[in-house]
Amino acid sequence: MSPVKDRSTSRFPAPDLAQVPKDVRERIEAVQEKSGFVPNVFLALARRPDEFRAFFAYHDALMEKPGALSKAEREMIVVATSGLNNCLYCVVAHGAILRIRAKNPLIADQVAVNYRKADLSPRQTAMLDFAVKVAARSHEVGEADYAALRDHGFAEDDAWDIAAIAAFYAMSNRLANAFSIRPNDEFYGMGQEPRN
Amino acid sequence: MSPVKDRSTSRFPAPDLAQVPKDVRERIEAVQEKSGFVPNVFLALARRPDEFRAFFAYHDALMEKPGALSKAEREMIVVATSGLNNCLYCVVAHGAILRIRAKNPLIADQVAVNYRKADLSPRQTAMLDFAVKVAARSHEVGEADYAALRDHGFAEDDAWDIAAIAAFYAMSNRLANAFSIRPNDEFYGMGQEPRN
Amino acid sequence: MSPVKDRSTSRFPAPDLAQVPKDVRERIEAVQEKSGFVPNVFLALARRPDEFRAFFAYHDALMEKPGALSKAEREMIVVATSGLNNCLYCVVAHGAILRIRAKNPLIADQVAVNYRKADLSPRQTAMLDFAVKVAARSHEVGEADYAALRDHGFAEDDAWDIAAIAAFYAMSNRLANAFSIRPNDEFYGMGQEPRN
Amino acid sequence: MSPVKDRSTSRFPAPDLAQVPKDVRERIEAVQEKSGFVPNVFLALARRPDEFRAFFAYHDALMEKPGALSKAEREMIVVATSGLNNCLYCVVAHGAILRIRAKNPLIADQVAVNYRKADLSPRQTAMLDFAVKVAARSHEVGEADYAALRDHGFAEDDAWDIAAIAAFYAMSNRLANAFSIRPNDEFYGMGQEPRN
Amino acid sequence: MSPVKDRSTSRFPAPDLAQVPKDVRERIEAVQEKSGFVPNVFLALARRPDEFRAFFAYHDALMEKPGALSKAEREMIVVATSGLNNCLYCVVAHGAILRIRAKNPLIADQVAVNYRKADLSPRQTAMLDFAVKVAARSHEVGEADYAALRDHGFAEDDAWDIAAIAAFYAMSNRLANAFSIRPNDEFYGMGQEPRN
Amino acid sequence: MSPVKDRSTSRFPAPDLAQVPKDVRERIEAVQEKSGFVPNVFLALARRPDEFRAFFAYHDALMEKPGALSKAEREMIVVATSGLNNCLYCVVAHGAILRIRAKNPLIADQVAVNYRKADLSPRQTAMLDFAVKVAARSHEVGEADYAALRDHGFAEDDAWDIAAIAAFYAMSNRLANAFSIRPNDEFYGMGQEPRN
Repeated sequence: MSPVKDRSTSRFPAPDLAQVPKDVRERIEAVQEKSGFVPNVFLALARRPDEFRAFFAYHDALMEKPGALSKAEREMIVVATSGLNNCLYCVVAHGAILRIRAKNPLIADQVAVNYRKADLSPRQTAMLDFAVKVAARSHEVGEADYAALRDHGFAEDDAWDIAAIAAFYAMSNRLANAFSIRPNDEFYGMGQEPRN
Repeated sequence: MSPVKDRSTSRFPAPDLAQVPKDVRERIEAVQEKSGFVPNVFLALARRPDEFRAFFAYHDALMEKPGALSKAEREMIVVATSGLNNCLYCVVAHGAILRIRAKNPLIADQVAVNYRKADLSPRQTAMLDFAVKVAARSHEVGEADYAALRDHGFAEDDAWDIAAIAAFYAMSNRLANAFSIRPNDEFYGMGQEPRN
Repeated sequence: MSPVKDRSTSRFPAPDLAQVPKDVRERIEAVQEKSGFVPNVFLALARRPDEFRAFFAYHDALMEKPGALSKAEREMIVVATSGLNNCLYCVVAHGAILRIRAKNPLIADQVAVNYRKADLSPRQTAMLDFAVKVAARSHEVGEADYAALRDHGFAEDDAWDIAAIAAFYAMSNRLANAFSIRPNDEFYGMGQEPRN
Repeated sequence: MSPVKDRSTSRFPAPDLAQVPKDVRERIEAVQEKSGFVPNVFLALARRPDEFRAFFAYHDALMEKPGALSKAEREMIVVATSGLNNCLYCVVAHGAILRIRAKNPLIADQVAVNYRKADLSPRQTAMLDFAVKVAARSHEVGEADYAALRDHGFAEDDAWDIAAIAAFYAMSNRLANAFSIRPNDEFYGMGQEPRN
Repeated sequence: MSPVKDRSTSRFPAPDLAQVPKDVRERIEAVQEKSGFVPNVFLALARRPDEFRAFFAYHDALMEKPGALSKAEREMIVVATSGLNNCLYCVVAHGAILRIRAKNPLIADQVAVNYRKADLSPRQTAMLDFAVKVAARSHEVGEADYAALRDHGFAEDDAWDIAAIAAFYAMSNRLANAFSIRPNDEFYGMGQEPRN
Repeated sequence: MSPVKDRSTSRFPAPDLAQVPKDVRERIEAVQEKSGFVPNVFLALARRPDEFRAFFAYHDALMEKPGALSKAEREMIVVATSGLNNCLYCVVAHGAILRIRAKNPLIADQVAVNYRKADLSPRQTAMLDFAVKVAARSHEVGEADYAALRDHGFAEDDAWDIAAIAAFYAMSNRLANAFSIRPNDEFYGMGQEPRN
């Protein structure tokens, strides 16, 4: 009676992994090794190796580099702006990562639905105010917005990071939405505290 | 380092249960008995017994009555429109109920973030198209919208139900948002399939 | 040449009053007695007695109870938020009530079209700023909005009342819009000062 | 207790009529003669005689000229687009004119709040669909919109008229809103059927 | 391969100039003399001589009169609000005039795309903040907006001018958009500093 | 009297080119060689070499690769979506490239302000309809949008390209807006046909 669950990775057929370039395949195998499954964004983008390489290089440059923003805070930016953009893949996949990195099973839903009501510090709320403005109305961003970040102790390079992460996921959300990239079932329960 | 978790039920102090009228207290005790905890909306609204009674009478009239819409489908309407209205309480609480009623740990996030990408039947998608239009642009609802429902087999009374549920949660979302009603921690993990 | 005037109460047929439950019929007869006609919302909702009872119980709990907001001020909230939601039934019916309760034939159009230009006290304008924010962007309501009300002398329970009335009519507007509930002709001229 | 009613014509002081150029004063005297009062838009714009002359010349060219649109229909365009733009002056003043020209005390509120629910012919609804699109999203107007008008019997010159009236009141609404031109009290009751 | 360039003045056929009234024809000949070509808005509106006369009388009353706003500043208002309204004719034609009047080949694109990033004085930015609010949300304009202008040295009559120009082009943009008035090819290169 | 022209590349200081990694410096020198100047986006992003490399790798993967979309058409996508996002840098810089690649001095302004009125083929208009939907409302993109592309002869890989370019510039626009990257003066006149 219930609809058959969709099993595709996206509306574009995923490539045969045997055919993808070695470096792309190795990155996919590494994430499989580490996570126990291959997040569908890897399979979807592998159709286009050059775009795959640039996408993950950009991702790593923003999300894996050292800096004053904690890894959980970077995921908050992803989840808040992906909620704004109604991106199912990014909310579910990065929501899982956020729960794990923040060691908080509640935080992803709070940030995705309305970060103003989330269990955040004032500094984190200011960070998301800026990120959401970049995502939604970047043409109105001005020096007053940078000053508000400084008031919460963010340095200039932190402001760059917040804006760049919001901008990168503005792209990522649009790719995932337009290509109907499906979040893997595994993400939904990650970091949850089940209750019977 | 992480912010202290908020423990309030809402921005208005919850009443002392010993002081609330007997019928209100009994309803609260009954839900406590059944669920193992008291959802915060009960405690928040108990501050106003007449409004409490009307709210839950209305809720029951729409959500508990017989009809062609399954209970899971009614919760889909709640979750889709509450996502649209960025209502944290309703998305989390009714997302939990939806997962349980649909016996599907994935469905709540799908419907809350973007029902167009959810594992739904075409009939359910049409139901949510109508519900979301009532929630967002009810002044543009017209006979063409009812015809689209009929094309998917919905009777006139089903159309009433969809519209009335969307309208009731338009109210409920605004109450929960304006009063900062906090979803109980218990809801987040309900119906999830945890993964380590 | 001019279109035949619609005479229906709503797009759903009104029930035969002889068939509706006694308490519902008695409420309808009481309003008929008092007003000289039956406002169409009573006839439209009588199709669903449980919903009828809950709707009017909720209405009375908010609009008839004692409190610091005058009855005219409560109607201002209804008319301003119903104008925002383009709800013909509510603007016309509650505009009539507002004119009468405020003893002011001008106030309903002013509040429905643009309350910022209406003959209101600063306190009433602050009340409508809050109500309209609840109606339009409740997810952004926060403590600063409550503080603005306090600055105009509103107590916490007054703030609850304003939000709850705005929320109740968010529901009511969507029902009236989706069901095409037609305002009775009698409302238009009530409280007007005719001019030839 | 109630706020003192504002008596100004607009936020700019009205000029001394003895000082305004003769042709402007004569036009004002003529409308006073005909209507029994001077609509405030005349007094507000008289501060700028050249703009006064151009404004009313344009008004007359669109609203008084012969053509397939009845005078009541032209006022429907004014009222529908002025409602969209939340222009109190234009909704109240032209609502009065519409009631009189259509000999229908209900029509102005219907068209101002939600023309889709008004007692209109399908042809008139199509006319307002076009007018409202010009008012709200003129950059998306295209040949399909003109074809929809043709389907209801509108000639090319009628389409011009509809667009030009919507455009002229886009200007007029912004002037009245920005200058806070107050609708004269006399307008509210004109064409109403009072009821006690 | 490339689409044939459209050569029409607008979607309505331009009138035979031999048939238009003498005063209209003389105005057209004068602009031809002065500019070396006839801007298409003259040809498009000549179809309706009375509207033509009122339109250009209004234009001249706002754009050619003495006043504290420089002619370049008036064109900034036109270009900023026409960008907001996606009006191709007005952005291109008045962008050309702005480049020439400001003796600045960069200014038109800056103001049309995002005046907040343009090479403007704070006073000019405040002028455009006001103009854009009149264009986009005139119902929310209030005394605080006039006070912001005063803080930058604008007198009451300057505020009128800014609002009136924004309002006039609200009309003009809608006419040009709805009628598809095509900007003459000559405008694009005017005031540019070409680079090979 | 006129404001001093801003000479910065962005709100973040550009790095000393002597200090940037060799590969980044070489890319900058190559573009300087080819264009005669260094577009500011290169200098702004050089502050972050890893992001610089990923950004331009992604750019080249989308904009320089073979495919059914001509290079001019790819620039149309950039200009139309950048206009939507009010991105001054991208409209001016890519407007210049579009004029040159399309050998058409009019096309950039047309596409930036309102592509619906531009001299485009129906196929190109369909391409931009899709791109703009990805940019503005990607969560509503569905199979009907892909079918509309197919109707104009676009293959599946072309649809990917359109969406990916729109998504990449969704990121790029937000970076340029948030960082206030200034378009170089040289871009404005490129590909223009000057007129005295």
